[in-house]
Amino acid sequence: MDNYEIGLDVVFHALADPTRRAVIQRLGRGPATVSELAEPFDMALPSFMKHVRVLEGTGLIRSTKIGRIRTCTLEREKLAAAERWFAQQRALWASRYDNLDNLLEKLQGESYES
Amino acid sequence: MDNYEIGLDVVFHALADPTRRAVIQRLGRGPATVSELAEPFDMALPSFMKHVRVLEGTGLIRSTKIGRIRTCTLEREKLAAAERWFAQQRALWASRYDNLDNLLEKLQGESYES
Repeated sequence: MDNYEIGLDVVFHALADPTRRAVIQRLGRGPATVSELAEPFDMALPSFMKHVRVLEGTGLIRSTKIGRIRTCTLEREKLAAAERWFAQQRALWASRYDNLDNLLEKLQGESYES
Repeated sequence: MDNYEIGLDVVFHALADPTRRAVIQRLGRGPATVSELAEPFDMALPSFMKHVRVLEGTGLIRSTKIGRIRTCTLEREKLAAAERWFAQQRALWASRYDNLDNLLEKLQGESYES
């Protein structure tokens, strides 16, 4: 399994949780401290930190600590890589339909000729 | 948690596995029997069937059995719903940058006026 596939495994696993998706969504509006990120959730801070660490482990977010304040930032490129997987699937479907179109045109051409 | 969020949980969980992503990719080229789908994998059929059932449980694929042959089909709309989550995130970032642009223009305007 190559790095891209392993990367997809961990990114999709990370996104399979509503808290983690909400964190990604919040960080889309700009960097935030862990306290700010945790605020909307009815969750103990250690539990919330586990989600932050999962996201950080995937490379979807990074964090820096200054004094006691840890600030998180979204790594959009990582999220874009996961989104590209969907685009690749659509490209495959599209090429399949192009092939069907070509076949249909060929068959229609043949029926006109006969 | 609404149905859309629950749906995303199970779809992203299903996609966090290379065998299941490969099945989705194969079905993008058209329907296939379980035997055809299993063929590229060095895996016992009962193990492979677990992956098929996970995908079927999410609604990403559906299957019909005629005699002893089970044929699987991709449900693209379900995959498209997961892809839309990424598009929504990008729309949020874009609106953030629009706001920054507007602020910048306003500040530049003010500095010209003073």
